[in-house]
Amino acid sequence: MTTSGFAYSDCFVPDLPAPAPRFAGFAPFNFVGGHNDPEGIPRQALAEAAARVILREGAKLAIYHLGHGPLGYPGLRDFVADKLTRRRGLRCTAEDVLITSGSGQGIELVTRLLLMPGDTVLLEEHCYTGAITRFRACGATVVGMALDEDGIRIDALEAQLGDLAARGITPKCLYTIPTIQNPTGSVLPLERRRALLALAKRFSMPVFEDECYADLIWSGGAPPALYALAPDQVIHIGSFSKSLAPALRVGYAVADASVLARLVACKTDGGTGALDQMVIAEYFSGNFDAHIARLCALLEDKLDTMLDEIDRQFGTSMQVFRPKGGIFVWMKLPDGVDVRKLVQPAAAAGLAFNPGPDWACDADAAASYLRLCFALPSKAAIREGVATLARVCFEATGVPAFGNNSRRTA
Amino acid sequence: MTTSGFAYSDCFVPDLPAPAPRFAGFAPFNFVGGHNDPEGIPRQALAEAAARVILREGAKLAIYHLGHGPLGYPGLRDFVADKLTRRRGLRCTAEDVLITSGSGQGIELVTRLLLMPGDTVLLEEHCYTGAITRFRACGATVVGMALDEDGIRIDALEAQLGDLAARGITPKCLYTIPTIQNPTGSVLPLERRRALLALAKRFSMPVFEDECYADLIWSGGAPPALYALAPDQVIHIGSFSKSLAPALRVGYAVADASVLARLVACKTDGGTGALDQMVIAEYFSGNFDAHIARLCALLEDKLDTMLDEIDRQFGTSMQVFRPKGGIFVWMKLPDGVDVRKLVQPAAAAGLAFNPGPDWACDADAAASYLRLCFALPSKAAIREGVATLARVCFEATGVPAFGNNSRRTA
Repeated sequence: MTTSGFAYSDCFVPDLPAPAPRFAGFAPFNFVGGHNDPEGIPRQALAEAAARVILREGAKLAIYHLGHGPLGYPGLRDFVADKLTRRRGLRCTAEDVLITSGSGQGIELVTRLLLMPGDTVLLEEHCYTGAITRFRACGATVVGMALDEDGIRIDALEAQLGDLAARGITPKCLYTIPTIQNPTGSVLPLERRRALLALAKRFSMPVFEDECYADLIWSGGAPPALYALAPDQVIHIGSFSKSLAPALRVGYAVADASVLARLVACKTDGGTGALDQMVIAEYFSGNFDAHIARLCALLEDKLDTMLDEIDRQFGTSMQVFRPKGGIFVWMKLPDGVDVRKLVQPAAAAGLAFNPGPDWACDADAAASYLRLCFALPSKAAIREGVATLARVCFEATGVPAFGNNSRRTA
Repeated sequence: MTTSGFAYSDCFVPDLPAPAPRFAGFAPFNFVGGHNDPEGIPRQALAEAAARVILREGAKLAIYHLGHGPLGYPGLRDFVADKLTRRRGLRCTAEDVLITSGSGQGIELVTRLLLMPGDTVLLEEHCYTGAITRFRACGATVVGMALDEDGIRIDALEAQLGDLAARGITPKCLYTIPTIQNPTGSVLPLERRRALLALAKRFSMPVFEDECYADLIWSGGAPPALYALAPDQVIHIGSFSKSLAPALRVGYAVADASVLARLVACKTDGGTGALDQMVIAEYFSGNFDAHIARLCALLEDKLDTMLDEIDRQFGTSMQVFRPKGGIFVWMKLPDGVDVRKLVQPAAAAGLAFNPGPDWACDADAAASYLRLCFALPSKAAIREGVATLARVCFEATGVPAFGNNSRRTA
């Protein structure tokens, strides 16, 4: 750089994020993030779907948006509308669906639509870190809603809205993951859904519903989506990252026409990747229900393995929330344990987990929580990883003092 | 909306773009945008490539970034590094390449890196509308650099930089499309490249080089990329939209490690679509040069058709810039003709074109220019469309008075 008339570092704007570290591969025991089960990828069927759709419609790749306009590939929008109608109770057609580059882009677009610096957003007190980060990045204040094992506590929310109003604060919107909540895995009951929508209407707040994980529910199904109950109050987003594969960057948004037209106007990426869209539509149009049944069986089996090993290793030292679907277990160590202090020793032992504070509106209040993803590791790696976590935790904190049927020693 | 406690329109932030109109399909004579030739899509080979790479590596789709980290699919980064080394003179490896969701995302990321409200950016006076729009959207002022038939006029640029400095203005960066410039189709000669880089160094400006169209050059090749001549001064981006297909949203950025680490940190989309990346890598790794030769032959044949018909219909009323590659013809009607007034009558006649003002830093100064894309329409549509444009233009302006070997009459 010395021979040049400038140094790049002099040219950068001041508020940039820190440089990304060079990718060094994953920890051997990788319980981080939202990866899925490699065994769940139907390679043969996807290869056939890809070949078929490219032969049939590949010439359109020469045209932006495949020549179909910015809402996305019609075959995929048809599939999404059908799936949401059948499985989540929405009344919608392909014209109500915008394909997005992952549900993350859905969150970005809705943030652009609704939030300005100084605005307040309500989120579940334990919530998706990507939403918390994006809302804060635009200068909004995130305020947590109290949860119990069934999700948002409506009585607490009503009191909270009154308190906020008394302080002159009107939340700009309410973001929620009502069906297989991230990280807790809860499902909001129907009567709470109705009460939530009534409160939102009373306080003139649009509801931003993220159903990223709703396809992965173990049994018994779930109440209709919030959008199904009140389409004029709710912006609904979802994703194929969990139902198929996160390396495919495909999600969707469903909203009132006046909202969708604004989201489209804010989506300046020239469209979402066409092959990702075409292959998902081609494969899922004939296979969705069977695929989901097979994937859920794989995942619930891994979940059972993880819960069994957590119980064996941590016993009563770990409070575990059994999820009703999805890919995560949310759990809590005794008060006073700060899981942030376990990150480095865990990494040294080859293990990565998500500290609860990153998944919380109030980080310090979630210091003893953590989240493990059970979808990616094998069952053997789940057992060995949970045992490793218990050992690391004991060495750092003295908890759990008992495990694997015996008293631990340092 | 009347039954709801709120109207969405009350909730939107104030500076939103206007709602997107419902997509109504393309004009029959569609000369707009950067679409490619549907005949140029190798459907059979792409279908085979897709099936092969999904069978071989599809299990990795379960993992964000295919488990390879945020730079992108290694097979594609290897291909890009090899292509740029062989064809554009860059010395780079896969570690220097970041895959982006189209080159538009490259422009967005570099804008985030370098530009703040009030900053000044230098661009070719006639330049890519997407770059102009993005720079302005972040509050920067765009200042045009004078062009001739070989691109940026270095003498004029040097004088301009002196004038700006005298007014206390230091441009924050210089954005250029030196190889198959958009919209003019020029190629900047080697000596001008060296002089441009020397000036940029003297004025401490990073150079932002967009080589979106550089793969589509008719013959004789081009001088090395600016990045090849001065890797410590240049951020280089490119795209597969033009060499393969714009519905695939895949581009790339090459830059100094300190810059790349910042671009990666700003790329918060969870990765670029995996299948788009994998299929491009699988197909192009064995077929790039042959594919480009075939595509260029297709395109140059269409170009010749368009130039012939423009000459036949407009004669000396149209000043035409014969491009050295790419998919566009840039042309100029006599001074005093404002092409913006032709947009509506052209649309009524089933024709869409890009008005020059949208492709210019100073819109009014480019009022008599227009851009036609010749890649998408058939040769028959090119002839009929150019004839239609001449008729519309004559009816609105009296120009061209002669065409198709006869005097026009209203």
